[in-house]
Amino acid sequence: MKSQLRKDHISGRWVIIASERSKRPDDFRPAQPEKKEPTAPGFCPFCRGNEAKTPWEIFAVRDDGSAPDTPGWRVRVVANKFPALTRGEMPRKKSQGIFEFMDGVGVHEVIIESPDHDREMGDLPIGHLGEVLETYRQRIQSIEAEAQYKYIQLFKNKGREAGASLSHPHSQILATPIIPKRVKEEIYAAERFFNWAKECIFCRTIREDREAEERVVLVNAHFAVLAPFASRFPFEMRLLPLRHGPSFSSVRDEELTSLAEILKAVLTMLKTSISDPPYNIVLHQAPHPDRARKAWPQIERIFHWYLEIFPVLTHIAGFEWGTGFYINPVPPESAVKFLRE
Amino acid sequence: MKSQLRKDHISGRWVIIASERSKRPDDFRPAQPEKKEPTAPGFCPFCRGNEAKTPWEIFAVRDDGSAPDTPGWRVRVVANKFPALTRGEMPRKKSQGIFEFMDGVGVHEVIIESPDHDREMGDLPIGHLGEVLETYRQRIQSIEAEAQYKYIQLFKNKGREAGASLSHPHSQILATPIIPKRVKEEIYAAERFFNWAKECIFCRTIREDREAEERVVLVNAHFAVLAPFASRFPFEMRLLPLRHGPSFSSVRDEELTSLAEILKAVLTMLKTSISDPPYNIVLHQAPHPDRARKAWPQIERIFHWYLEIFPVLTHIAGFEWGTGFYINPVPPESAVKFLRE
Repeated sequence: MKSQLRKDHISGRWVIIASERSKRPDDFRPAQPEKKEPTAPGFCPFCRGNEAKTPWEIFAVRDDGSAPDTPGWRVRVVANKFPALTRGEMPRKKSQGIFEFMDGVGVHEVIIESPDHDREMGDLPIGHLGEVLETYRQRIQSIEAEAQYKYIQLFKNKGREAGASLSHPHSQILATPIIPKRVKEEIYAAERFFNWAKECIFCRTIREDREAEERVVLVNAHFAVLAPFASRFPFEMRLLPLRHGPSFSSVRDEELTSLAEILKAVLTMLKTSISDPPYNIVLHQAPHPDRARKAWPQIERIFHWYLEIFPVLTHIAGFEWGTGFYINPVPPESAVKFLRE
Repeated sequence: MKSQLRKDHISGRWVIIASERSKRPDDFRPAQPEKKEPTAPGFCPFCRGNEAKTPWEIFAVRDDGSAPDTPGWRVRVVANKFPALTRGEMPRKKSQGIFEFMDGVGVHEVIIESPDHDREMGDLPIGHLGEVLETYRQRIQSIEAEAQYKYIQLFKNKGREAGASLSHPHSQILATPIIPKRVKEEIYAAERFFNWAKECIFCRTIREDREAEERVVLVNAHFAVLAPFASRFPFEMRLLPLRHGPSFSSVRDEELTSLAEILKAVLTMLKTSISDPPYNIVLHQAPHPDRARKAWPQIERIFHWYLEIFPVLTHIAGFEWGTGFYINPVPPESAVKFLRE
């Protein structure tokens, strides 16, 4: 059974029912972090030499003339073996009584950040990390060129608690057939602010936060890392470009090194200050202007891409599920002070 | 520092910054389920004989004439020792530049479900579980009578992965000074459906699901347990009253036993089929009509309370954080089939 997008008519949220990703319901056991990693280093499909164990190579950074699906790469992109969404014709909404659904069409790729199983993203040399970021940009631009998908979500799950099922460092990219509700909400909020203040809400936040200083984690030539005023989680951060740009595609070549430097600095901070926690990195960006301009004519001016970065230190509990509120025991100002010291 | 409600101007979500709940940022370590429970049974503040270790008793079920804050109770309600919100005058929104916040005013109580440390909710006799549910109703009605709070959120976190910090079976109740965004969204969706179909969306879902059967987990005299069509998680369930009622306060005495029976049956199913997983129970209900009728004149007809129940088997990952979409590897129809067998 292919995956299916289903809409919850009460909450309005879409869900991907991806039954290919697990075998049967009885394979399901509680999330047990102490459970052994299913793939020991030698058997890891993402390791150098195991290229045949993954689906076909979509893209790779190689400079030795080596052939696809063989060693010699530094960054490698492959199709996800258990995709949540698969490429195909754009689906139509169907309904069955009061329920709405559509085929699970889209893209699901894996970006293997290095051939080394134990080299975490934060441990990569700046040049190599820059190549990972360049690969992000290349994949986003390439999938955008396929034109039929509405939104591209890039993210990284590090550690089991952050949702990673394989420990070999990797990122993922999905393209969805609809613009997700959460993305729309952010754009609408940014649009309201823009109409009121005639300024990008992110540019303004960077300026106000830099003046107040207490929520600034790091700043370099082209980027800033801020702790959000209303952080949901301890040590939540937003890594934003100082130069306004709506999507990751707008990053310029000369900014990539600066981005690699600040990202490495943040990951190193997390690793050393909070003893190597699991974490998520989540890209927030505008949809491609061709897919967004109808709804938001000024999309390129109102939205400002950023990476959300946070360690997974707390569990989501009943109160959060019911209200959508989060309870954060560490004020962002204290977290910044702690990280800086 | 008292807790503070802060609004994220980009996502529109409110966050409770509750710094009383942890000591310092450097006390923060990754969520490690293997970490030892901080309170061994003998030292548990919720156990019989340790009544002096909790804040004052707000309510208890006792029938032996025993005094408050002494043994003799079967269900006991106390103030939360590390409250996310504390009672007080209704706060005003303040602002600082582009940021909005208010004092963390509200209610945060703990409902200790039994004096026995190891007796899980699903293991309580029906009569005792009925008393827990009656206590839920009593506390909700009592807090509603305080009139100044806008919404009441009742929930249970079982197990560390579900957000519980103490293992002694307990539930929690919070009252917030604003109606949470997620609650509003559900009410608006229910209202839209009601205006279109002239019928409660939940009553309709129960009817359609009972006809189709494949998502019905259990039905008894007064309640049904359904797997949502767009379940976010494997084995997600909604426990709904067959008789329309907007909030938990509307449960009648003669329905309480039926509710206790179906809840116990569901928890027993989870425990035996999925080897005792951590889980959350989350009440969804309408705000008190006096606080909601202005925004939704027909609030009592459009909203239908329910308990959301789901085991914690998967981790929330980057894709979910970015899009608000969930990827569920188990179709609800398969989950129901598995639970029934």
